Amino acid sequence: MEFFSFELIAQDGNARAGIFHTPHGDLLTPIFAPVGTQATVKAITPRQLAELQASLVLANTYHLFLRPGDQLVAEMGGLHNFMCWPGPILTDSGGYQVFSLADIRKIDEDGVSFKSHIDGSARRLTPETSTQIQQNLGADIIMAFDECAPPYDREYNLKAMQRTHAWAERCLQAKTRPDQALFGIVQGGIFPDLREESARFISSLDFPGIAIGGLSVGESKSEMHAMLDILHPILPVHKPRYLMGVGSPEDLVNGVLRGMDIFDCVLPTRLARHQAVMTNHGRMNMLNAVHARDERPIDSDCTCYTCANFSRAYLRHLIVAKEILASTLLSIHNIHILLSLTRLMRKAIIEGRFSHFSQAYLSTYFSRPHNLKKQESA
Amino acid sequence: MEFFSFELIAQDGNARAGIFHTPHGDLLTPIFAPVGTQATVKAITPRQLAELQASLVLANTYHLFLRPGDQLVAEMGGLHNFMCWPGPILTDSGGYQVFSLADIRKIDEDGVSFKSHIDGSARRLTPETSTQIQQNLGADIIMAFDECAPPYDREYNLKAMQRTHAWAERCLQAKTRPDQALFGIVQGGIFPDLREESARFISSLDFPGIAIGGLSVGESKSEMHAMLDILHPILPVHKPRYLMGVGSPEDLVNGVLRGMDIFDCVLPTRLARHQAVMTNHGRMNMLNAVHARDERPIDSDCTCYTCANFSRAYLRHLIVAKEILASTLLSIHNIHILLSLTRLMRKAIIEGRFSHFSQAYLSTYFSRPHNLKKQESA
Repeated sequence: MEFFSFELIAQDGNARAGIFHTPHGDLLTPIFAPVGTQATVKAITPRQLAELQASLVLANTYHLFLRPGDQLVAEMGGLHNFMCWPGPILTDSGGYQVFSLADIRKIDEDGVSFKSHIDGSARRLTPETSTQIQQNLGADIIMAFDECAPPYDREYNLKAMQRTHAWAERCLQAKTRPDQALFGIVQGGIFPDLREESARFISSLDFPGIAIGGLSVGESKSEMHAMLDILHPILPVHKPRYLMGVGSPEDLVNGVLRGMDIFDCVLPTRLARHQAVMTNHGRMNMLNAVHARDERPIDSDCTCYTCANFSRAYLRHLIVAKEILASTLLSIHNIHILLSLTRLMRKAIIEGRFSHFSQAYLSTYFSRPHNLKKQESA
Repeated sequence: MEFFSFELIAQDGNARAGIFHTPHGDLLTPIFAPVGTQATVKAITPRQLAELQASLVLANTYHLFLRPGDQLVAEMGGLHNFMCWPGPILTDSGGYQVFSLADIRKIDEDGVSFKSHIDGSARRLTPETSTQIQQNLGADIIMAFDECAPPYDREYNLKAMQRTHAWAERCLQAKTRPDQALFGIVQGGIFPDLREESARFISSLDFPGIAIGGLSVGESKSEMHAMLDILHPILPVHKPRYLMGVGSPEDLVNGVLRGMDIFDCVLPTRLARHQAVMTNHGRMNMLNAVHARDERPIDSDCTCYTCANFSRAYLRHLIVAKEILASTLLSIHNIHILLSLTRLMRKAIIEGRFSHFSQAYLSTYFSRPHNLKKQESA
């Protein structure tokens, strides 16, 4: 029995629409995965996520390894059961967080020793332990343990890429669960030759999907786009492609334009906790006094629960009064914006009009920030 | 047209089941109102409140007067529209919060001058302004401006009661909206003669409902019960009786036993934010390490969303990880416990078995704290 398969439904330019079959449901690509770092999408219940028609949810191996521990999650029946998310789940490898959050003690060819950012305890991750932890967590899609280098340091990127390649092979060796799909990760910073080499190597291994790491970590938009343009012709057509840690509405459109299928990012929920909302025309800060007496929803075209029911005035009041509900309602809106955008992109690709869709979207994006649909308030 | 009327459906001993008709729906008493201090029940969406079958929600005049201001709420269409709660709403008078939260500058026969606890600004509330503010907010049930004294100070209680009585008459004079029911408030601390005098006086005025203030503010349970026993025969049978700021499951049962119909309290949501859950057998602290690997729900008899879906292990993980979702899920459970208890009490009263119900409930309450249904984990 095949637990995983990827069907390419339509291509429009480099943009792709597909179906990735997983044991917990089908992923209709392009798709955006909200991030549930600690086995919860912050401020949102699983029922609210389902109402948002989310399908794939990401959880972080680094965080869950440290707390509550992958063994405990396994005892509780795995992540799906633990966090009550019946749909597909993806876990990262822990690599990115080790390099960004932890106090690293030692990187060697075998793995990384570090101190927990929570309690300072000494911990170690290797390709084998990362894979075992992810097997204990039990997500549908798991990631190879990789090293993400700062984008502009060529020497470091070469080394990190080589290590990532060696570790990718060890992760494939270590993986035993047939009901999990292990994705390999392409690294290489902003260096075309490294990206090309990494894409060729990772594509040559027996991964059912390919992830692009090390982008959206400080490089410019055009550098990110250039890297994706290099990768597109190299990556195998019949495997899903996952652009890690991206992103914003415009980054999703630009990623799909360049052949990417899967995206994840903390941005919608993090922005929400910092009072900002995404729209298809840019961001707004809901704390702004201009909203104090505004009866309109964030976006009167939006069909999310928040926009269907609450005024900007009320949302601003919740923010000023430091009410938890502000985070919940803004998160619902922001996640909806990204999920509905991916659904619209999928439809446009299938209908062969993605070139026009993406051009129109990107040309009106940022065109009306802070001033959405002013005419309607007349 | 009558906006308000109270039908007494059944009496069982002193316990009562009734229907209070309001412009935004019927209140089936006994009833518990979750508290939305700042126009939001903390960490809960209105949709979640509706799923909990909440009907009456309380909001605080003091808080909304200071922020965002009653004028702004009025401009936004009133509280129902502002906070998106289509059901009945009750606002208190601001009196209790002025005396408990604010820095009071001067109490006189006319009203109270105080400093806002938010920004230190000088503010003033009188019976007339409290009533006007509540008319701007637009709740279905509004409260007379009163003075709540510490329970054991007789001299202060006499003075506060007399002031409360004079203010009650002024609130009746000031009120103009026919679609709002103004309730009078009985004060008198723990002094039987003052309570009796206050009950007689407030009952003599043209209020469609009577509230009991100044209880559950530091006196003992038996003192609270003694006061309620004094009030019961004095209060008019055909008006709803609202025991303010109560409470816990056992306080609700004891209140209903003594003829009370309406209750409100921050307890379920406040406990939730402090990691504690209510059950029909006492409280549990969900942070306790004993829950770390416990696959059972908080209460396997409970039908709330939290208990239907999440283990104690997961809830404890959310608490330890300081995730917002912990407050949401624990609030849902705690509110459900009180709402389902009032529904059970109503059914028992209508079926003439409340004496047995209340006796059984109170005798098993606190019987199995921290150890609910241990047999089921076998």
